[in-house]
Amino acid sequence: MPSTHQVTLNAPLDMHLHLRDGEMLNHIASASAKTFSAAIIMPNLVPPVSSKEEVVAYKKRILSAIGQEDFTPYMTLFFKPSYDKAFLESVQNEITAIKLYPAGITTNSEGGVSGFDVEELRPALEAMAELNIPLCVHGETNGFVMDREAEFVSIYEKLATAFPKLKIIMEHITTKASVDALEKFENLYATITVHHLLITLDDVAGGMLQPHLFCKPIAKRPEDREALLKIALEGHPKVMFGSDSAPHPKHAKEACGCAAGVFTAPIALQLLVELFEKNDASLENLQAFVSGNAQNIYGVTPGNKKVLLEKKAFKVPADYKGVVPMYAEEEIAYSIKEITHG
Amino acid sequence: MPSTHQVTLNAPLDMHLHLRDGEMLNHIASASAKTFSAAIIMPNLVPPVSSKEEVVAYKKRILSAIGQEDFTPYMTLFFKPSYDKAFLESVQNEITAIKLYPAGITTNSEGGVSGFDVEELRPALEAMAELNIPLCVHGETNGFVMDREAEFVSIYEKLATAFPKLKIIMEHITTKASVDALEKFENLYATITVHHLLITLDDVAGGMLQPHLFCKPIAKRPEDREALLKIALEGHPKVMFGSDSAPHPKHAKEACGCAAGVFTAPIALQLLVELFEKNDASLENLQAFVSGNAQNIYGVTPGNKKVLLEKKAFKVPADYKGVVPMYAEEEIAYSIKEITHG
Repeated sequence: MPSTHQVTLNAPLDMHLHLRDGEMLNHIASASAKTFSAAIIMPNLVPPVSSKEEVVAYKKRILSAIGQEDFTPYMTLFFKPSYDKAFLESVQNEITAIKLYPAGITTNSEGGVSGFDVEELRPALEAMAELNIPLCVHGETNGFVMDREAEFVSIYEKLATAFPKLKIIMEHITTKASVDALEKFENLYATITVHHLLITLDDVAGGMLQPHLFCKPIAKRPEDREALLKIALEGHPKVMFGSDSAPHPKHAKEACGCAAGVFTAPIALQLLVELFEKNDASLENLQAFVSGNAQNIYGVTPGNKKVLLEKKAFKVPADYKGVVPMYAEEEIAYSIKEITHG
Repeated sequence: MPSTHQVTLNAPLDMHLHLRDGEMLNHIASASAKTFSAAIIMPNLVPPVSSKEEVVAYKKRILSAIGQEDFTPYMTLFFKPSYDKAFLESVQNEITAIKLYPAGITTNSEGGVSGFDVEELRPALEAMAELNIPLCVHGETNGFVMDREAEFVSIYEKLATAFPKLKIIMEHITTKASVDALEKFENLYATITVHHLLITLDDVAGGMLQPHLFCKPIAKRPEDREALLKIALEGHPKVMFGSDSAPHPKHAKEACGCAAGVFTAPIALQLLVELFEKNDASLENLQAFVSGNAQNIYGVTPGNKKVLLEKKAFKVPADYKGVVPMYAEEEIAYSIKEITHG
């Protein structure tokens, strides 16, 4: 992408977003709703969103929190092996995907899957494949923190092989191992966050410890970041932007025992434009990464919000209603100039 | 070591200790002085301790801070390539070792060595070898955080080869790569902290982020910890206990941009007894690890403090005058029962 003064992104999509609930939802929903046309909303509330009533009610709370913004929450359910076809048919119109968490692997995932027995999962996953409901997966084992995602690749491969018609989204991938898996199986797709395109473990723990860059999966090695950057910059058709923007109150991040999650929603598009420009990637590829690929993979047709960004330094606020964003109080190169609706 | 109710350690030595200065020195010096006979005191103050006057004055401040305790601070200088034989002879009686920091690698190390040109270092290091002054080294490059120590091994090997009569102490080693180097070169020795025998990166960043376990070098992989544990438990004659106990005020640890260092001084011996017992290592090996090996390597004869520990749960305080220790508010298995002087 040539260094330009202005860039327009059409219908930006955030295919992995945590909007939380209650006061936090009301505080941070607008940050995404303002600049994105739609987003996949993760279901890891307490308790997790796992019934039709819960998903309908949560969607209502989200729409109330975003007010007048033109934004579609693509709702998800928290995967349970007990979901059967009748249930999935009954809830199909309310959801865009179902999210699978291994048990205990991240914030509010205690009720997740603890074995990956194909036969146990078969009824639910075959019904999902039949109904064309994508399965989003947080792919980490309970192993050593730097190995968890790479160890999970064999589970991705097992699921991809056993359920060839199921669309499996490898969420927030952070390793070269996951990039390699993506190329090997037709029905594997992936989301990548903006922070994993920008940082490695060095940025989290190489100098002073940076709690606001601590997330799960943890940022990995330089060669992993390079592999992610390559497929993002080329607009690889199986890869979508998903911020995994995950707010926690400041006191929960700057504490003994800091919670995992990076809050990027308000600055994600600005950072992506800067990153693609810096790496000489085309605007076309950025457009594919932030919207086109997701439309193709999910078969969604978002509202046509147009976000005009300009090359003008933006000082990231210290916090958004008590949530500290990535790069707080630092300057980033692009600002949002105008948002229009086509 | 059989599970016993009581264990006596003779003349415990902490061969790597940060006592800081000013108010912090006065707050924390007694924690080490109470249970150790002596300790190698690191020179990374601001400005670093690098003249005879500074080392004499710092020793005086330490002795004043410890008051009546029977404790010898083994003083060190902050290595500079400009040290010549005349200078070293003049200061020799005041110091036990000289500490080399690569520039910018840890707390207050800005004035350290930035190249490792053997010829540039030759005058100082040959004079040290001649005067039998050991060189303590913080062995990390400026590379990726998980690779820094392993990358430094080639520098250790270069120094060990170029200065075969110089005793080189690889400080606070954290990797299997360093353990392997130790075996290859006769003049390489090592210290190991208690926290690196107990934790891996998983404990720092695998669950919630734990700033009080964040240190430099950062805790590494499980196989690294295993390699360290093996040589510690066998009382390997080239390996000494060095706590690297490194206090920071609570607010500097629990903050955005947390300082590196784990404060273990008040609980180090208790943890070591528990660890050796749990791993069925002999009391003889523990005694070698916490005192005998250091006496042989450094040629020191510490005062004969006897520390009697008993198997009785000890709840670690939340803080020691504003400094949060490792395992704060947790229970450890051993307590110090009595300290006597032989």
